[in-house]
This record gives sequence, structure tokens and C-alpha cells, in this order.
Amino acid sequence: MNDGQRPLGDMPADDFRHYGYQVVDWIADYFEHISELPVLSQIEPNWLKDNIPESAPEKGEDFGDVLKDVDRLILPAVTNWNHPNFHGLFSTSTSSVGVFGEMLAAAFDMKAMLWRTSPASTELEDVVLDWLRQMLGLPDHFEGIIYDTASVSTMHAIAAARERSDLNIREQGMSGRDDLPLLRVYCSEQVHSSIDKACITLGLGTRSLRKIAVNERFEMIPEALAEAIDEDVDAGYLPICVIPTIGTTSSSSVDPVDAIADICEKHSIWLHVDSAYAGSAAILPEKREYFAGWERADSIVTNPHKWMFTPFDLSVLYCRDLGIMKQAFSLVPEYLKTNDESTVKNGMDYGIQLGRRFRALKLWFVMRYFGSEGLIDRIREHCRLAELFASWIEDSPDFEMLAPVPFALVCFRACPDGTADLDALNERIMNEINASGEAYLSHTKLNGKFTLRLSVGSIRVEEQHLKKVWELLNEHLNGVVKASAKGAD
Amino acid sequence: MNDGQRPLGDMPADDFRHYGYQVVDWIADYFEHISELPVLSQIEPNWLKDNIPESAPEKGEDFGDVLKDVDRLILPAVTNWNHPNFHGLFSTSTSSVGVFGEMLAAAFDMKAMLWRTSPASTELEDVVLDWLRQMLGLPDHFEGIIYDTASVSTMHAIAAARERSDLNIREQGMSGRDDLPLLRVYCSEQVHSSIDKACITLGLGTRSLRKIAVNERFEMIPEALAEAIDEDVDAGYLPICVIPTIGTTSSSSVDPVDAIADICEKHSIWLHVDSAYAGSAAILPEKREYFAGWERADSIVTNPHKWMFTPFDLSVLYCRDLGIMKQAFSLVPEYLKTNDESTVKNGMDYGIQLGRRFRALKLWFVMRYFGSEGLIDRIREHCRLAELFASWIEDSPDFEMLAPVPFALVCFRACPDGTADLDALNERIMNEINASGEAYLSHTKLNGKFTLRLSVGSIRVEEQHLKKVWELLNEHLNGVVKASAKGAD
Repeated sequence: MNDGQRPLGDMPADDFRHYGYQVVDWIADYFEHISELPVLSQIEPNWLKDNIPESAPEKGEDFGDVLKDVDRLILPAVTNWNHPNFHGLFSTSTSSVGVFGEMLAAAFDMKAMLWRTSPASTELEDVVLDWLRQMLGLPDHFEGIIYDTASVSTMHAIAAARERSDLNIREQGMSGRDDLPLLRVYCSEQVHSSIDKACITLGLGTRSLRKIAVNERFEMIPEALAEAIDEDVDAGYLPICVIPTIGTTSSSSVDPVDAIADICEKHSIWLHVDSAYAGSAAILPEKREYFAGWERADSIVTNPHKWMFTPFDLSVLYCRDLGIMKQAFSLVPEYLKTNDESTVKNGMDYGIQLGRRFRALKLWFVMRYFGSEGLIDRIREHCRLAELFASWIEDSPDFEMLAPVPFALVCFRACPDGTADLDALNERIMNEINASGEAYLSHTKLNGKFTLRLSVGSIRVEEQHLKKVWELLNEHLNGVVKASAKGAD
Repeated sequence: MNDGQRPLGDMPADDFRHYGYQVVDWIADYFEHISELPVLSQIEPNWLKDNIPESAPEKGEDFGDVLKDVDRLILPAVTNWNHPNFHGLFSTSTSSVGVFGEMLAAAFDMKAMLWRTSPASTELEDVVLDWLRQMLGLPDHFEGIIYDTASVSTMHAIAAARERSDLNIREQGMSGRDDLPLLRVYCSEQVHSSIDKACITLGLGTRSLRKIAVNERFEMIPEALAEAIDEDVDAGYLPICVIPTIGTTSSSSVDPVDAIADICEKHSIWLHVDSAYAGSAAILPEKREYFAGWERADSIVTNPHKWMFTPFDLSVLYCRDLGIMKQAFSLVPEYLKTNDESTVKNGMDYGIQLGRRFRALKLWFVMRYFGSEGLIDRIREHCRLAELFASWIEDSPDFEMLAPVPFALVCFRACPDGTADLDALNERIMNEINASGEAYLSHTKLNGKFTLRLSVGSIRVEEQHLKKVWELLNEHLNGVVKASAKGAD
């Protein structure tokens, strides 16, 4: 097959079948044995680069050889997000059917800019987003659109808020104008960095973002928000958007959306709810209380690629009035004009990206294969496991909880008697565990304290995996404390 | 398998193999028989929506049933971009090995925000972008970064230009300032709508974009650019970026980058080259002349998902100094701090998106399976086919060319003797051919004339497919002319 005489065109169909089965087998083995692999890749920086030729091959290679290099070069350099002991950041994972969705989407390779270039993607997107809306308990005036990431979804939400401000920024922009007050966006101190980045990108600047104080549970204080807005209005600034979070990245805290919605309503400010992580948990009736008031939002972001077993990327933005997004972004050059514009939805009208992947397919597969009950069961189990882990922390004299657990993230630290520098101790324990490849934890700072974060979210996680982390934590704590005691001798 | 008693966790490995083979077979059949399918989907708007239940199933379904629905519901709603007679917009296509790349990337499901969360993706991205840089003949001071789409790549390029303007827009933003002149971005009248959208998003507004006149070959007139800049500087405006295009979307015209680079140099303006479509052709030595001067750019965008057989999405932005992008976008919250920041590259530092897909894998597969020679052979054949088609137009008394053919896009129209309204005639021919499902052409307007566009770019296209379009055009032309003659009787 690699004789330099390969005809033009694509790989022959028989070869596609042959190698396609091999790739399927490879993935099946990978999923089956993933818990035997290290969670964090154990390579040193530049190892992969140093082991790959400096230039592309001139002659085509046999795909079998390429696949061997996936084993030899790629796999050791993979951090295994699907490992059941990946508890860092937010633990996300793909399901098998999600992979099938990506296979078919890649084969179709549609660009869903226009309805006519991709009716399947355009219409299935509407269908699955309405299915999801119902599962989340959102009213039917919410219409959704799929973007790649929450960063991009949120950027679009703030752009829509900016558009609604009647300052004609779409056309006139913000530079070279002396008629434009300082525009303000509000969020809590615990907000995700994507919101700072959105403000940078949109030309609002980081100073436009006012971060509101939180209470001892890391929740935005509505009175502080109201005060800040009043102060800004008095100063001649223009509040355009407030972004409460349901499930912050640091601690998964929940801002009081209902109280914040009252303030937004009073001032006619766009209310964007960031539930990129926790949104999926709204499908559990017993978690619905955390979402009180989000039905009053102008826009809501939630990421099925985070906690709904859908491969990255698939972020959903629900809007009360998607027409504002169209007003902000629609722009149809001659070469994209069609004769059906009045009757169909063209995805390109709702954002900066023209081409859009067929992302709805994988979410449709996930929803059908697991059913709403299967998804509820899995997310509920993750919340149970997180609570169980938290109970071990609470029962131990050597550890303490540092934040509530509304969903499936546990924030805690080791605090053995007689250790002066707890920050250094916890950082060392975390680094040792992460370096071992046995599990992956990440950290944050809460009230100035170095805080360990354990996120439960993998479709493959079981109670045994949490037990393993608990053992590792105690082992490493004992090791470090003993070593310190020895050092002190 | 669908008894409501499914245990928690993912699909069992044996089922994954079973259904995975079925999906591979499905795709193999799809690729093998694609030319028997209609190019444009033949469904009516809402057909798919109307045929899917209104809510998600409560109980999980057998995946075999889901796959049957791919045949029954999805396939008829697919516009077949991989069809060899897809000649609309730009003809793009995926190769088989590109699909394998997406399969594995979906299975790994890494988010390449940090080196440590995805060493494989971070390092392979550097490797393949350097391979591609060499193939394109770009000097080694260009460093690349992968984004999803050219719209997003270009938005980042303009953001970097804005950052370099020393106006501290990252922090201070643009609203509520009276010290900020009107910022200006320049491109030709033939520019892609993504640049307008980038200016809208970045808060520059559409008025910041000054569109420069083109000559009779639809190429930006450098003298007109120089004049516009002088005029703007005199008016107190600040030129920040010029965007020439190599391969415009309407007609694939080539702006004179070298002459434009002189002007940018003189005024210290960021030079961003949009070669999203035609960049791939720079791997052909005989096409290199069209790229003269692009090595002087500050940034260049090219999309392997357009004309390098790599499934959507994979857009590459090359920068002379990627550090400026980092300066514009880097922002590291506590929960993303690591102890290796000084030694590794963290992808999240270079743009708005935090998580990033493992896109490099599919491009690595494509480069290795075809080799640089295999890629050159295929793109060269597309150019030959476009020239061949153009020669048929030129030899025919009933058709005429409306633009040069530097790459593989042919702009033409029917112009039979005695037809008054050529615009209506050509639109009707195009709509008839598109509606037939036999081939897909799109249109643009050049010098006010309704222009048919035939793009050659599919990995599956052969001379016979061009012949078929030529026959269709003549048949439909004759049909329409005869019908008119009859109507006139």
C-alpha cells in the first residue's frame, strides 16, 4: 500500500474498513484498561517533540505504521481525562456513544453555516436543545444555540447585552467616541476567567468587570451588587450585564440568582447565568433548588461536554430572545445569500463562527442511549459519591472541609495537628499524588487557604475510586508528616 | 440490552466493538456510494424536526435502533459535502484518515488548556504546525496556533493588532474614554464577512473597517490603500491592521501582499494575511508566486479543513511573534496555576477558548498517510481540473469567464445570444441544477453580474464529475432558452 504508486483520491473502502476496525478495537481496549494507565501523562516536557521527525514525510506512509505510533508516541503523552481517578479541574468524560457521534459527524464533515448546507445539523440542534431544555426544567421561551466552549458562549451573551444597550456599537464601535459611558459587567470574585477574557476580547477591558464580594459560602452578596450598581450609575457608568454563577469553578458555590434577577429587572440589565459546569445537575429534581431564578435570565450557558458524557466540544447557550443574537451578528454576503432565508434558520446568523460542526448528533446519541433516567441516575450517583467522600473528610481528625458540596466537587485540606504551614503541606501532598499517576487532584485558594479540589464526574467512576483517593491522601499525609518529624530530629 | 436494568457506567466494551464496527461499515458504505446520493439534501424545511419525538426518551434505547434512525432520519437531511459534485462555496472534504483522527481525539477527550492536561495535543500541535510551515515555504520565525475556524483566527489576529497599539485596551477597554482615536482596519471590497464580524465582536464596529477598491481582477489596489491610510492619519484615526486576502471567497482573487507589506511597514501597521482557502496551495511550487510577500506578515491564517482533507474544524494562525497573542489573552486564575509554567506552553494562554480539542492528531494522520507529495499531487490535480473546466467555458459561445483562475475556483456565467436578463437566466440554471441534487454550485456578484462559482476541492473529485457539471449546465441552459422561446411564441 505504500509503494509511492498510490492513486489519487482517498483511502480505498476496504482499507477504511480494515483500519477503522483497528481504531475501534484500539479505543475499546483503551476504555477497558484505562484505569491501569497513569492519570497524568508521565512524560517530561518536549519528549514527544524530540521523538518525532522534524519534517513531514514526502511519501505517504502505511496507516498501520501511523497507528503503531499512536501507541508508541501519543498514548504516553496523553493525560487520561477518561480515567475514573481524574478528579482535577472538573472531571469530564466521554461516553462510547459520544465517540460514535463524532465519528459520523467527521464523516459527514458538514459546515452548518446555512440550513441548506446542513439541514440535519440545523434541525437536530433545535430538537436536542429543546429536549435538554425540558430536562433542565426551563420554560419554553428559551431557545438554544450550540457553540464550542463556554468561553465563546459567554462572550456571545455579553455581546448581545452590549448590543441591547442601544449604543449602536455594532456599527459605530467604541473607539473614537466621546458619547460612550464606561460599560460595566458584574460577577462575583469567584467567577471563571473566561468572563475576564470575554471582556478583554469584546473591547470592554478588564476594568469594565466589577467583581462583587462573596459571603462565607462563596456566594455573591446581592446587597453588594445592588450597591455597586447604584454607585456606578451615580458615576455615569452604564451597567450592561450581570453574570451570576451556579457552580463556580473554584468551589462550585451557587450565587443567589433569584435575588440577583430582582436587581437586574429593576435596572433592565441583561442577566446571564453561568452554569457551564452545574447546569447538567438541573435534570435532578432534588437539585432544582440551586437553580431558583435562572428561568428569569436573558441567557444561560451549560456545557454537556462537562457533565453529560458528551465529548468536547459542545456548549449550549439558551436565550430568552435569540433574535438579539441575530441582530448582533447576522451579516449575509452575496455568496451566502439563499432564496429560503425567510423560512429557515441559518446557524451562521447567531455568532462569529461561520462554519459550525455537527455537534448535535453526539448529544442526540447520548440522550437516546442513556435516556433521561439514565443520565439522572449517573449524575445522582456522582453527587452521592462526592457526599460520601465529604463524610470521610468530616469524620477524620486530619482533614477538614473548606466549602459546601452542592453538587459533586469537594473542597478540603489536610490539617493535622502541629503542622505550621498547611499550604505547603497540602501542595506537597497534591503534587506527590499527581506525580504518581494514581489520581489527579487540582487546587484552588479559598479564603487564602491552599485548597484541594476533588471533582467526581467521570462516567467510569465508582466508589472504589474514591476509596483509593482517600487511601492515597492518608498515606501521603502520613509520609510527609513522618518525613517532617524525621527532618526535625 | 434495553431492559431498563442497565448498570451505571458506560456501554460495555463488547457492545462498543460491535456497534463501533457497524459505524465503521456505515461510513465505508457512505464514502463508497456517496456519488449516488443527492448533493444538496432534498428535504423540506422542518421535515427532520417533524419526524422526531418532542421529548427525550426516559429509558435508554438500544444503540442499534439509534443507528437505524441515522439511515431513516439523518442521512436524508444531510447535504453531502464529501460528494465529488459539491462545487458550492468552497468545496471541502474529509479524508478517511481524518475521520480516524477524530475518532481517537473524541476517545481521549482531552482539553488542551494546560500542557499537563494534554501534553500530546500541545506538543503534536507544535510539530504538525512546523511541518506545515515548512511545506508552505514560510520562514521559521512563524509559530502557529490552532483555532476552530478562520473567523476565530482572524478575530485573534485583529485583537493582537489592537493590543500592539499601546492603548492598553486589554485593561482599559474602549468605552468611557475620550483619549482613543477611531481605530481602523483595512481590507478589500472582496473581503470575507468574517472580518466584518470580527470587527463587530471586538467592539471596533463596522465603521472601523475601511474597504479598499479593487482592480478589474478583483485585487486590492495598493495605491488606494496608501491613500486611505494617509487620509485616515490626517483625520486623526489610528490604522491598526491591514488584511489582504490570497484567494478571496467571491472569486479567489489575490491581493498584492508584497506591495501592501511596504505600506504596512512604513506605517508600522499589523499585516494579517487571510489565506484561509488558498493557503494550502502554497505547497505547490508553481503556485508560490501568488504568495509573494506573505512571509512579511505579522500573522497568516490558513485552514487545513478547507483544502487539506482534514475534517472541520482546524484553522491555523501563524504569528511572527506569538508572544503578543499571549500578552493579549493570557490570564491564569489560581485553579489553573501549575508549577511548570516557565518550561511549557499552555494553549489556553493564546486565545479566548480555555479548553481546546486535540485537533493536531487528524492533521498529523493526513500528513503521514498522504505525505507532502501526495498532498501536492491532489491539490495540483484540482487546479488542473479547474483550468480544464475554464477552457470548456472559454471555448463555448454560450458561456463566459468572469474572473481569472489562480487556484481551483471558476467564476463564469451563461451568456447565450439574445437573452436580455442574464442574471435571472443564470440564477434559474443554478437553482435547477442544485434542486436536482446532481451537483451543487453557488454564486456571487462580480461587477454587478450574477456569477456562477464552481469550486474544485473534494478528495473524491475526478474529471468525470466536471464533465457531468458541464453537461448539466448546457442541458439546463438549453431547457431554459427553449422554454423562453416557447413562452415568447
